[in-house]
Formats: sequence, C-alpha cells, structure tokens
Amino acid sequence: MNTNAFRSLSYGVYVVSSWDHGRAVGCIANSAMQITSSPATVAISINHDNYTNRCIADCGRFALAVLAEDSDPALIGNFGFCSSQTVDKFADTPYSIRGNLPVIHDACAYVVCEVVDTMETETHTVFLGKVTDADVLSSRDPMTYAYYHKVVKGKSPKNAPTYLPEEEPAQPKWVCTVCGYVYDGETPFEELPDDYVCPICKQPKSAFVKK
Amino acid sequence: MNTNAFRSLSYGVYVVSSWDHGRAVGCIANSAMQITSSPATVAISINHDNYTNRCIADCGRFALAVLAEDSDPALIGNFGFCSSQTVDKFADTPYSIRGNLPVIHDACAYVVCEVVDTMETETHTVFLGKVTDADVLSSRDPMTYAYYHKVVKGKSPKNAPTYLPEEEPAQPKWVCTVCGYVYDGETPFEELPDDYVCPICKQPKSAFVKK
Repeated sequence: MNTNAFRSLSYGVYVVSSWDHGRAVGCIANSAMQITSSPATVAISINHDNYTNRCIADCGRFALAVLAEDSDPALIGNFGFCSSQTVDKFADTPYSIRGNLPVIHDACAYVVCEVVDTMETETHTVFLGKVTDADVLSSRDPMTYAYYHKVVKGKSPKNAPTYLPEEEPAQPKWVCTVCGYVYDGETPFEELPDDYVCPICKQPKSAFVKK
Repeated sequence: MNTNAFRSLSYGVYVVSSWDHGRAVGCIANSAMQITSSPATVAISINHDNYTNRCIADCGRFALAVLAEDSDPALIGNFGFCSSQTVDKFADTPYSIRGNLPVIHDACAYVVCEVVDTMETETHTVFLGKVTDADVLSSRDPMTYAYYHKVVKGKSPKNAPTYLPEEEPAQPKWVCTVCGYVYDGETPFEELPDDYVCPICKQPKSAFVKK
C-alpha cells in the first residue's frame, strides 16, 4: 500500500469549536464534509486525544469556521498545535457567538451543528451534526489543505487523520518544535534576526531545532 | 441559515466504484475523507438513490479513484449523471482491477477499502472503509470540487450531499438536460455547429434546452 495516495484527497482547513462548560475551546480539522443537503448535515473527524473531542461529546454541539487562504497562519499554530485543556485559544483570537457557539472572525464562512449521531473508530470520533446556523463571512477564497501545505508550507499535527510521518530530510533543516514548520528561506537560519518568529505559530527563533 | 456557507467547504472529485455481482459499477462523489491514519480508514457519503450505494452495501467493498484537474470531464457526465442500474459505465472507460476492485485509469491516485462500519442518515449512507490497497497513479494535480465548478463549469447531481438548487438565471440559458451544464460560450448557442457536444457529458446539441 502506498500511503502517498492519501495526499491526493482534497480538504479544507477549519477551526472546530465548542464549549467546555462555558469556556470556548477549539482545534484545527481538515476532515469535514457535508453528508446530506436536506436536512443539511456535516460530519467531522476528531482525534480522541483532542480535548475538543470530549467537549463536543459533552455539550453536543460544534461549529466549523472555514479558514480563508489569507487567514492568519498563526491561527493554525494556536488552534492546531496546542491543547485547549491547558491553553485558552480564544484569549487573543477575535470571535463572536454565532448560533450559540464561538466562531472566529478571521474565516470566510461558518457552520454551526447539533450532534445527531457519532461513529467511533480506534483513534477518532466521527461526529454527525445537523446544521442549525450557517453564514458567509467574507468573499475570500477558502484555504484548501493543499494550499496550506504548498503555499503556507505548514505541517499536519500528529492527531490529524491525514498525518503521515515526514521522510527524513537529506540535509539538516531547522524545524519549529511547536508546529513542525520547516524553515526554507534563502537566508541561512543562523543569520536570521533575533526577532524572527515562526510564520505559522509565531514562536520565537529559539523554538527551532536543527534536524 | 445561509446555505451558501456550504460552498466554502472544500472537496475533491472521485469515482467511487464497486461490484454488482461481478459487474463494475460506480458513481461520482465529492464527500470523501480520511478518518484515521493508523489503521488508515476513509469515509464516503453516498445517496440511498445511487445504485452504487446498494452495491457497496452488498459486496462490502469500494474503491475511490481520485480525478485529476485534467481528467476527462466526460467521466463526470458518465459516472455522475447516469445510473449504473441501466448503464454500463465502465463499457467505454479504461480501467484495471486494483485490490480486487475496478479502478479507472484516468485518475491520479486510488484507494481501495473494505467497509467496516456505516452510519445512516435520512438520505445518505456514510460508509467507513478500512484501506486495503492504495497507490499513486500519476503526479497530476487532484481536481478539487471548486476547480470543477469554476474551471470545468460543472454542476452538482441532485443526489450529491452538496447539491443546492441553482438560482433562476436572469437571462434564458441553454442547459444540458443530462448533466446540467450551462452553456456560457461567446457564440450564440443557436449558431453552434450541429456536431457540438456538451463539454461535460458529451451529449449532442439536441440534449440542451433553453431555460
């Protein structure tokens, strides 16, 4: 089996949000799709290890904010590479309550769902949500997962359904230990200014290690 | 609720295939996503009214061929706008048996699955498949659903999870009755040559009606 075939499947990039007893929580997901059109339902796949998983299970609702191509990549670092159990991901992220759920502003659309069914797998829960609210927030182009990898040069969290271990690079590379971003600029990493930050998760230069 | 929000969700375009007692059958799907990475599983959403749905349920297996941006658009007309119950969709479509399932050649990758779980909705079945075989067929870019709509200018079959009724056009337009393609060329439709065929499903000029 050649698992590179999985890289051909196309996805968007979403902030999935929910409530943890009144506290806004969320994570990044790319596995989301509409299941039926009437009534409208949407399914998402969330790893058991994601704190947002148990929050969705407990509160029975989730929202999907659709990231745009020019959404701040730091959103992916914040929502994709930290845990809502220990970090307040919404502390510095502008958001509004839409359909009774927290929805970030920097998105091109959102969908709010009430969980109507679940399907368990060894590592992920598929939540089937009946859409209770949805709207377009801007006319920006949605970010595809391919765009995230090719243009933003981002990586997949280990909890993602689409995570594939990276091949070892032939040459040593500087890698962000928080989000996995591999520095690929023309300036040698050592010569970057001290205030350089990871373009994905905004961590300082000191968060990078040579691999 | 603004259902236009659903247009922001990103998908690929796939030929889902299976066996009908030894006969190759298939349909077009855009709702497909990886659910887990280890073991690798993939979920697809197929309308109850699609003949392929009952074939997958009966034989317990399905394949996903990932269409490329430059895959023949006629594949979408053939697999997306006809029924395998009455049409042999593989009759004029080159394919091979991969992992014991029929996989079309004109694709950039394929994934073969054994159904391990299902989730029923009012109109669609979500099949969860454990991947038993997968490979890359070419380095072409996968076709996204957005590319299909924007560049190929194709429409959604009424059975698609993402189907939205089209708004009535302000001006009369010529529409292909087989696949829903709306003619948008510069030459007035009436002045097109008699051998004009629909660029999506290859139906003759006579298959178009003015709406």
